[in-house]
Amino acid sequence: MRFDGREKGILRQVEMVPGYIKHPEGSILITVGDTKVICSASVEDRVPPFMRGEGRGWVSAEYAMLPRATEHRNIRESSKGKVTGRTMEIQRLIGRALRAVVDLDALGERTIWLDCDVIQADGGTRTASITGAFVAMVIAIAKLHAATPFAKFPVNDFLAATSVGVLEDGTAVLDLNYVEDSAAAVDMNLVMTGAGRFVELQGTGEEATFSEDELSELITLGKKGIAELITFQKEILGEEVSHLIGGQV
Amino acid sequence: MRFDGREKGILRQVEMVPGYIKHPEGSILITVGDTKVICSASVEDRVPPFMRGEGRGWVSAEYAMLPRATEHRNIRESSKGKVTGRTMEIQRLIGRALRAVVDLDALGERTIWLDCDVIQADGGTRTASITGAFVAMVIAIAKLHAATPFAKFPVNDFLAATSVGVLEDGTAVLDLNYVEDSAAAVDMNLVMTGAGRFVELQGTGEEATFSEDELSELITLGKKGIAELITFQKEILGEEVSHLIGGQV
Amino acid sequence: MRFDGREKGILRQVEMVPGYIKHPEGSILITVGDTKVICSASVEDRVPPFMRGEGRGWVSAEYAMLPRATEHRNIRESSKGKVTGRTMEIQRLIGRALRAVVDLDALGERTIWLDCDVIQADGGTRTASITGAFVAMVIAIAKLHAATPFAKFPVNDFLAATSVGVLEDGTAVLDLNYVEDSAAAVDMNLVMTGAGRFVELQGTGEEATFSEDELSELITLGKKGIAELITFQKEILGEEVSHLIGGQV
Amino acid sequence: MRFDGREKGILRQVEMVPGYIKHPEGSILITVGDTKVICSASVEDRVPPFMRGEGRGWVSAEYAMLPRATEHRNIRESSKGKVTGRTMEIQRLIGRALRAVVDLDALGERTIWLDCDVIQADGGTRTASITGAFVAMVIAIAKLHAATPFAKFPVNDFLAATSVGVLEDGTAVLDLNYVEDSAAAVDMNLVMTGAGRFVELQGTGEEATFSEDELSELITLGKKGIAELITFQKEILGEEVSHLIGGQV
Amino acid sequence: MRFDGREKGILRQVEMVPGYIKHPEGSILITVGDTKVICSASVEDRVPPFMRGEGRGWVSAEYAMLPRATEHRNIRESSKGKVTGRTMEIQRLIGRALRAVVDLDALGERTIWLDCDVIQADGGTRTASITGAFVAMVIAIAKLHAATPFAKFPVNDFLAATSVGVLEDGTAVLDLNYVEDSAAAVDMNLVMTGAGRFVELQGTGEEATFSEDELSELITLGKKGIAELITFQKEILGEEVSHLIGGQV
Amino acid sequence: MRFDGREKGILRQVEMVPGYIKHPEGSILITVGDTKVICSASVEDRVPPFMRGEGRGWVSAEYAMLPRATEHRNIRESSKGKVTGRTMEIQRLIGRALRAVVDLDALGERTIWLDCDVIQADGGTRTASITGAFVAMVIAIAKLHAATPFAKFPVNDFLAATSVGVLEDGTAVLDLNYVEDSAAAVDMNLVMTGAGRFVELQGTGEEATFSEDELSELITLGKKGIAELITFQKEILGEEVSHLIGGQV
Repeated sequence: MRFDGREKGILRQVEMVPGYIKHPEGSILITVGDTKVICSASVEDRVPPFMRGEGRGWVSAEYAMLPRATEHRNIRESSKGKVTGRTMEIQRLIGRALRAVVDLDALGERTIWLDCDVIQADGGTRTASITGAFVAMVIAIAKLHAATPFAKFPVNDFLAATSVGVLEDGTAVLDLNYVEDSAAAVDMNLVMTGAGRFVELQGTGEEATFSEDELSELITLGKKGIAELITFQKEILGEEVSHLIGGQV
Repeated sequence: MRFDGREKGILRQVEMVPGYIKHPEGSILITVGDTKVICSASVEDRVPPFMRGEGRGWVSAEYAMLPRATEHRNIRESSKGKVTGRTMEIQRLIGRALRAVVDLDALGERTIWLDCDVIQADGGTRTASITGAFVAMVIAIAKLHAATPFAKFPVNDFLAATSVGVLEDGTAVLDLNYVEDSAAAVDMNLVMTGAGRFVELQGTGEEATFSEDELSELITLGKKGIAELITFQKEILGEEVSHLIGGQV
Repeated sequence: MRFDGREKGILRQVEMVPGYIKHPEGSILITVGDTKVICSASVEDRVPPFMRGEGRGWVSAEYAMLPRATEHRNIRESSKGKVTGRTMEIQRLIGRALRAVVDLDALGERTIWLDCDVIQADGGTRTASITGAFVAMVIAIAKLHAATPFAKFPVNDFLAATSVGVLEDGTAVLDLNYVEDSAAAVDMNLVMTGAGRFVELQGTGEEATFSEDELSELITLGKKGIAELITFQKEILGEEVSHLIGGQV
Repeated sequence: MRFDGREKGILRQVEMVPGYIKHPEGSILITVGDTKVICSASVEDRVPPFMRGEGRGWVSAEYAMLPRATEHRNIRESSKGKVTGRTMEIQRLIGRALRAVVDLDALGERTIWLDCDVIQADGGTRTASITGAFVAMVIAIAKLHAATPFAKFPVNDFLAATSVGVLEDGTAVLDLNYVEDSAAAVDMNLVMTGAGRFVELQGTGEEATFSEDELSELITLGKKGIAELITFQKEILGEEVSHLIGGQV
Repeated sequence: MRFDGREKGILRQVEMVPGYIKHPEGSILITVGDTKVICSASVEDRVPPFMRGEGRGWVSAEYAMLPRATEHRNIRESSKGKVTGRTMEIQRLIGRALRAVVDLDALGERTIWLDCDVIQADGGTRTASITGAFVAMVIAIAKLHAATPFAKFPVNDFLAATSVGVLEDGTAVLDLNYVEDSAAAVDMNLVMTGAGRFVELQGTGEEATFSEDELSELITLGKKGIAELITFQKEILGEEVSHLIGGQV
Repeated sequence: MRFDGREKGILRQVEMVPGYIKHPEGSILITVGDTKVICSASVEDRVPPFMRGEGRGWVSAEYAMLPRATEHRNIRESSKGKVTGRTMEIQRLIGRALRAVVDLDALGERTIWLDCDVIQADGGTRTASITGAFVAMVIAIAKLHAATPFAKFPVNDFLAATSVGVLEDGTAVLDLNYVEDSAAAVDMNLVMTGAGRFVELQGTGEEATFSEDELSELITLGKKGIAELITFQKEILGEEVSHLIGGQV
């Protein structure tokens, strides 16, 4: 039994509030346990300079935390005058993960900006960001599609993410909260598609190592969690939009 | 009749959700029309270097907007590597305004950090931030007081803020939304106390000027709005905490 | 009687040396008591990117102090690598104030840069900067006009600024020097036109508040001081140039 | 057959020149194919502020490339005024990987700085950096040990890294050079210990995904490569120093 | 005959106004032709961290130009967020030059900050800065000496600087103005002491070279100019203070 | 006899390894005693914005040191977020020196970037950088010439640099190593051409001064050293390429 009473393979409670803020083309508030992230998708009708004129689109992500999203107040990155390495690593991960299921050619020469702003943090903020940003992005792209239908809907598959880890006592668990994450020997983030394929797999032993058997067990737990998250995403997006993805559900 | 059907002296609908995020000592989500700001108050047990050892406290504010709080996406200040002049001006205003009603000696050698993060913007974000930050700050100080009572409660009076302005047609109005604010000839921000005294008064004619009569009319409207906001703050804080402020209600 | 022997409604001694430095299209050294500011106006034949092609002009200001303009040496903002909030606030104020009396359409697609560099500071540097920058700007625009006459002279009215404040003993006074300013309960900056209309009014109680009666008294003092400053500006500019402003004197 | 004639499970030619630069406590030039990295280990007799007084040591890494280490010249990060996200990600990985095999308590209150400077890049610079930095670090720690023997030698196991990936034609290969890496559908970096345990496993499909079977094949190839690299590290370090690691070879 | 009618070995007209600004311990406005620099010397009762506790003093210089000191307006270094290479080079030169004639041991553990702010530029700003900063520094040190006499006056000799150069037609000239400097094939800055010894000699052929004979001629001209500048410095400082320097005049 | 056994007029041992790294159009590793610098020349087919469309080329240099090139580890400039004054001064010197022997018109509208990265430092890094960068640049330009012959080979003469100085005991010496340099009273860098003309001459007395006789002696030593370095450059470049320079050898 875990700290918060969950079994090892159980996700925390997940909620998604689509349309949480009014200006973005797509937005949701995703809640995973006590972690809350506002994900917004903004459509810009141009691409970064290095891609201009190629007719392909781009997907880019930014991630930040409110100063008091955490137990102790963090100095704002804007006040520091620079983005930390952790933030850069996370926002690069989010962008890369989402691009893996987007058909950039079908999207056409536009950029989807995904802003993931953590308003309350309790572990798993990067994986909640990916899971939520996917929904915000699909809402925005569906809105483009409603206005001017794409020849091919530019999202190839569903995409969600979760964390798994090995606790100090050697138990492998799904969806670690902050207390578990701080003490875990091994921490792994998994990003997978609706078809059960890997997009990212990042396993880390901070001052620790892990075996192939542990790796297998973590992957099994992660796959189960991601499948549940994708089922939830489909409910939120509704049948009509879900059918557009990959040309099938 | 105004754009959104309000009479000239009517505030937009105001809501305050105390405890909106769990980590800060005090927090609220304040909604004024379509403007939404998360205000959090964090207590730090030390003061800035230039004040150490004097036994006095400090109150400091920071202000930011999510990139897509506005109709068009803004580049993050952390990505730009610097805080804009507008942000600096606003956060200096918030801090200065709150310090006007705080007894820094009574507070003792600690800092109250007020973070005002705009998640949706529709005009009046700085005044909503002040009105909300005051409540978050009082919640945090009341929590300190509950743990170890202050000899004198360190908040001297209530404090709220609103905007007033002169529209293009010459009408003076209370609490401008974004559409009104963009077109207004004169824009004024007022910060006042529960006793009806001024803390800040900033009137600006951007490419325009105004007369003493217009100034008087704006002040009359502003006083009315602020009195209503303070009545609302008292409801949210409750009678017990409200009584602590200034030794009376 | 005040610290330096002045009555409460008396300005410090004012001097203006036009043409103080040779390269700018317009320049003056303005002296208000012991406060000395070099104001220069530079004409650039283009506008900021967001305004290009609209046929309108722009007026932009920058403000700085020499490191030892003050009693204690300040670290240069260039060495710090960033402009402080105070500087940003002041330079935004100067630009906004001057734009209120400039007809940007009549100016045509060019920028007037106003550089206000404080070489000696003794209170009231931002208001001296506005009063001096107005003169430097008019000199530069008159030079443009002499070369190629404008259909309409692009300056609509005179503009000057001063500070007023409430001293610790409750006296309202005009044109505070540094010693008075440091100890004042209330500090207000007023920017007004030749026609006696307000452009900016910024009243602040740092750790203090003020009443409507005090506000009225401060405005009365400020109006008197500004009228005197504008009389002086007219002398410096001479009758011929003064007549160009607003089509009348 | 691959581009450069290698079979899919064959490493590029590896060379290590210990003592390549004279000032650091430990240094090597590691060459993997056409990738060349100068790794240096510097010992500093203090730890970062957040760790002071705990009696534990720290290991920190920095990574950079000469501007023309690559086919096209890159702008220096010092000229840009900031470290890119890619660099931060890599240097955080190197530091974390090395700390997994260091006994920070046994090291005592000192920092080992690992500088990995790529002078020529042809794919696999981060994994070559880890493999080389491990050797530089052991040389530096062995030098400390020679001067004042540690009660326990603070390195628990060998550590090396390599990359594996899936080429466009679906072949899984070991140790990708730049041409292969640019075109690969899946790219994975593996860091493992002498005991065959994982330290880091980072698999990424840039605009692609991968299956569990592909994951297994990649891990098998990676383990083989890392075992060979560790054999080579032992030769370079010599029997005497190698015996110190983990109390056994 | 030169552009402005001078013979090749003639300095431009030099003026020095001591006490030009009131706050610094020492200040002058130095004018060399149309080049005008405010030099101020500030005394700080501590030294940089790397020198603390050694009982020695330090002399440090900063240099800047007002944006419109030049014919075309320059962007402020504070707005750019960094000091340019040219500025750094100049301020390092000024500091180094002055330290060559200061007895840092005799000065005791304090820093003299020299701020050289060019308000109008017409060539030779760095050499005018050195010549002026020397006077400002001596005034400040003499003030310290008047309050608490030094056992040994900490200035060993006079110090002044000038520029010399080879014009396009091959003529070697003294004290180039901006027009001459822009077109010169060779530019040399000389810093020398009252005893006629070299402190700095920086000769540069920008897209040109020079011979040993040209070098000799330039040095001869420079020595003459510096001797005249030092005679002028003595007049400004007065006989009493001048006698303190190096224990003799 | 000097610290390392050399006579006063003897250079340290010099080596140059052309083609040391494979990507740049020209590269060498230059070794002067224990100072080692990788010099690379990159050709870019455009010039800086201020020169576009003029048909002339540009030569620009950057200089850096690995953090542990020195006895004590230096913080990376990329981590500090800015380039130090020393680095700026050196890279401006290198660029200026090389431009003195390049015919920018003959080069055509392209930029040669010279990157000088010090991997091991023992005094004289800036002069070794110039001597090495010249060779790397000629290799790159000869490669351009081989592909499409220039009407006039754009390098006018050979160029090399060395340092000379006056030791504490008054001896003038050639090519100071770090130990000598640290203790020297006078330090001078000389850059000269194959024809024996000066390009740069920078003599500095840090907290010291020097006489004309000392200057003469230093120049004599420097000329001898530079002549030897140029002889060596010719050997490395080979007769064919050397003949291209200045139309003669």
